[in-house]
Amino acid sequence: MIIAGPCAVESHEQMDAIAANVAASGANVLRGGAFKPRTSPYSFQGLEEKGLQFLADAAQKHGLRSISEVMDGESIDLVASYVDILQVGSRNMQNFSLLKRLGKQSKPVFLKRGHSATYREFVGAAEYVLAGGQAEVILCERGIRTFETYTRNTADLAAVPALKELCDLPVVVDPSHGTGRRSLVAPLARAAIAVGADGLMIEVHPNPAEAVSDGQQTLNPLEFEALMRSLEPIAEAVNAKNVLI
Amino acid sequence: MIIAGPCAVESHEQMDAIAANVAASGANVLRGGAFKPRTSPYSFQGLEEKGLQFLADAAQKHGLRSISEVMDGESIDLVASYVDILQVGSRNMQNFSLLKRLGKQSKPVFLKRGHSATYREFVGAAEYVLAGGQAEVILCERGIRTFETYTRNTADLAAVPALKELCDLPVVVDPSHGTGRRSLVAPLARAAIAVGADGLMIEVHPNPAEAVSDGQQTLNPLEFEALMRSLEPIAEAVNAKNVLI
Amino acid sequence: MIIAGPCAVESHEQMDAIAANVAASGANVLRGGAFKPRTSPYSFQGLEEKGLQFLADAAQKHGLRSISEVMDGESIDLVASYVDILQVGSRNMQNFSLLKRLGKQSKPVFLKRGHSATYREFVGAAEYVLAGGQAEVILCERGIRTFETYTRNTADLAAVPALKELCDLPVVVDPSHGTGRRSLVAPLARAAIAVGADGLMIEVHPNPAEAVSDGQQTLNPLEFEALMRSLEPIAEAVNAKNVLI
Amino acid sequence: MIIAGPCAVESHEQMDAIAANVAASGANVLRGGAFKPRTSPYSFQGLEEKGLQFLADAAQKHGLRSISEVMDGESIDLVASYVDILQVGSRNMQNFSLLKRLGKQSKPVFLKRGHSATYREFVGAAEYVLAGGQAEVILCERGIRTFETYTRNTADLAAVPALKELCDLPVVVDPSHGTGRRSLVAPLARAAIAVGADGLMIEVHPNPAEAVSDGQQTLNPLEFEALMRSLEPIAEAVNAKNVLI
Repeated sequence: MIIAGPCAVESHEQMDAIAANVAASGANVLRGGAFKPRTSPYSFQGLEEKGLQFLADAAQKHGLRSISEVMDGESIDLVASYVDILQVGSRNMQNFSLLKRLGKQSKPVFLKRGHSATYREFVGAAEYVLAGGQAEVILCERGIRTFETYTRNTADLAAVPALKELCDLPVVVDPSHGTGRRSLVAPLARAAIAVGADGLMIEVHPNPAEAVSDGQQTLNPLEFEALMRSLEPIAEAVNAKNVLI
Repeated sequence: MIIAGPCAVESHEQMDAIAANVAASGANVLRGGAFKPRTSPYSFQGLEEKGLQFLADAAQKHGLRSISEVMDGESIDLVASYVDILQVGSRNMQNFSLLKRLGKQSKPVFLKRGHSATYREFVGAAEYVLAGGQAEVILCERGIRTFETYTRNTADLAAVPALKELCDLPVVVDPSHGTGRRSLVAPLARAAIAVGADGLMIEVHPNPAEAVSDGQQTLNPLEFEALMRSLEPIAEAVNAKNVLI
Repeated sequence: MIIAGPCAVESHEQMDAIAANVAASGANVLRGGAFKPRTSPYSFQGLEEKGLQFLADAAQKHGLRSISEVMDGESIDLVASYVDILQVGSRNMQNFSLLKRLGKQSKPVFLKRGHSATYREFVGAAEYVLAGGQAEVILCERGIRTFETYTRNTADLAAVPALKELCDLPVVVDPSHGTGRRSLVAPLARAAIAVGADGLMIEVHPNPAEAVSDGQQTLNPLEFEALMRSLEPIAEAVNAKNVLI
Repeated sequence: MIIAGPCAVESHEQMDAIAANVAASGANVLRGGAFKPRTSPYSFQGLEEKGLQFLADAAQKHGLRSISEVMDGESIDLVASYVDILQVGSRNMQNFSLLKRLGKQSKPVFLKRGHSATYREFVGAAEYVLAGGQAEVILCERGIRTFETYTRNTADLAAVPALKELCDLPVVVDPSHGTGRRSLVAPLARAAIAVGADGLMIEVHPNPAEAVSDGQQTLNPLEFEALMRSLEPIAEAVNAKNVLI
């Protein structure tokens, strides 16, 4: 499961270009935020339904599945009418009302770890969805908050095998948010595959310098293509070795 | 503003006994959780509307205002129909959909700091409520998550003067969650007054050992009474000295 | 125990001026770094023995005791020949070789908490000194490292009563390093007294803007005088109330 | 550079057995603590010089280089007379007196990251050694302290490429301390190779359940052998791909 795309949906053209690129490089899910959780209410909050439309159109045209964030119970139906996978952002990892509602609908749920959540809290949050009847929950490690300022977050790759000890859910790693620096995304993505992750979520934009948000941690299509090529031998190596240990 | 009461509303009798006690000791707001955010969906989730009723009855009988947590936009009207102040828990500090809805209703909002939120993120969250039109927002420092295991959280008292540098909202301290240990509640409460807090939120239960949750950080009525008596001279001292510095 | 003085000893005149001021305001110990632990080897490393001389002269002239940091076993005798109290900095809290040597000499030891040390590790470090025979160890809470960037460190005032539960040593608070911001030093100092601290360590400089280090967290003599006046009624209030609870 | 061996040197027989095993599996440096930094002065402090002798004998017999921790300037000569590489433990990362002395001697220095040190502080510490003239400094990421309790530390693999952006020193990863759980050591070791680490430090003991310290994070020889075999294809994959990105 390789999820790629921009932080925020910006336009029809942007999404079409990204979808074409990431599909060609081997991604199978297109991401893009239409409702954006931002620290300040005065920051860009997303294109909302129009953004979902652009995302869905681009995904369909290029043979990709789609994922986008749902921020409250009231908008689950709207988001679910456009996308294939419903994302819960890290700020809402313990929004139990939202999780309960997501347990009662039919789309898979992609749950991002809260930035200071313990593994057991993370699994507990997933159980809120599972308890409602939705068995397809995908966990996403996206970095935790520490004292380090060189990176935006500290990617916690031990979370992958640790979560697999605590539950049976697939675990995806987001090295874009996990590091916050473009130069660190590729090595952490390779390490995520080596540690046993079931997938990656990578921010990709045709021109990261012009992205409305998160540009500093976003790859351009060429960088993403190079990253994808570098993952193959690692995936092979690990699969073989998973049998051994 | 001295908020006191149990973690969770358990019964009519419990709330009546606590309300009588904390009112006699000088509290002016009665707390009690009716919808409980719990790490596991299989833990006690609260008495829900019945709990709100017990809380409201006890508060009214003993001349106290009331506060309880609201966990999603859908239940704002229900909670607001019973209580005077709407609490947003730390897990929902950046539940922006909930905050936006709270900005559009008429009850004061009591916003607990996320357990790893920076001061600026905390103020940003408050701005979501303020931007909607609700000007009465009370910030609550309730401890942050650190490496320490002796305490449940690390009470960050510098948050009080720091938040006052960043905004004009009142700041209340919750030393019960801020420490997680009964023996530390009183000294931290005194320190909170000394550092300039505008109020306290304290967990009180007739018999902490039998509380359904958070008993280990809860005072009994005698301890709460002793604490309240110890706060008076500090409050006096600080008021006088606030003029000097 | 009120310890005051500059981060670094800079000159005879500086120390004399500060000593006169802080003594007049009620401090009883003069601080000043002569050997400075700095992140980079290319930063100012202190005046070394000359700095100790300036510190000792100023302390003696103004009737103060003196304290300075000792950075290794080899220089214990040198530092001890000038000052009354030997400080171990936070970076050396678990420099067990140094602690063992300090247990075998006769001057009191002032042990600063490591910036991410747990309470039990802090007490364990003190035990290295105590085990050697030196019973006078003073613990100093000076802030821990968290994700917050508004402050330099997060002052952990619960450490004071918690450490008193774990051992019988006096606990002093350093709100200068504990916050890293001048505006927060006074409120945190008052809170430290209210929480039960046995003393304070405060950075004071005649002209903080010109201090060679830590100027942004340093009080000028007028601010220090005002702070000292504001502490008296809190100390009175707490002493009375310590009896009650 | 694959460093393997027990947390503490326990006996001649133990070291000989481990050395034979790890050499056969492909390790090239033998580790073993002779002077142990322990939280309490009443815990086992190591076999001291006798331990160094056992370590040196076993290393020489099996064609390995040796590494052990040096805890103070006074014992540098002693440790250096037995081992090839001098380790500075995480508690001493900012023991600047020790670092300065290590800059003036001729053995390579293996510097473990302090458990809450930023990348820039880590590089600053290395500069204390480099400034003295010793150019062979090896950095070791060994996990940082966070709120997580499932693991002992949080392995920060982004440190590897980040440190390589900040300096030109080799970076080794210690997944044993980095996780504190045997089951997580192998996946994190593989991830460390994938992220670009220049080596690994792994705790190995003939019978981890009987190790005097750190047994819960220690591999037995069979586990170590299996880990080593699993690293080869990843190392190959990454070397090839380092060229591409």
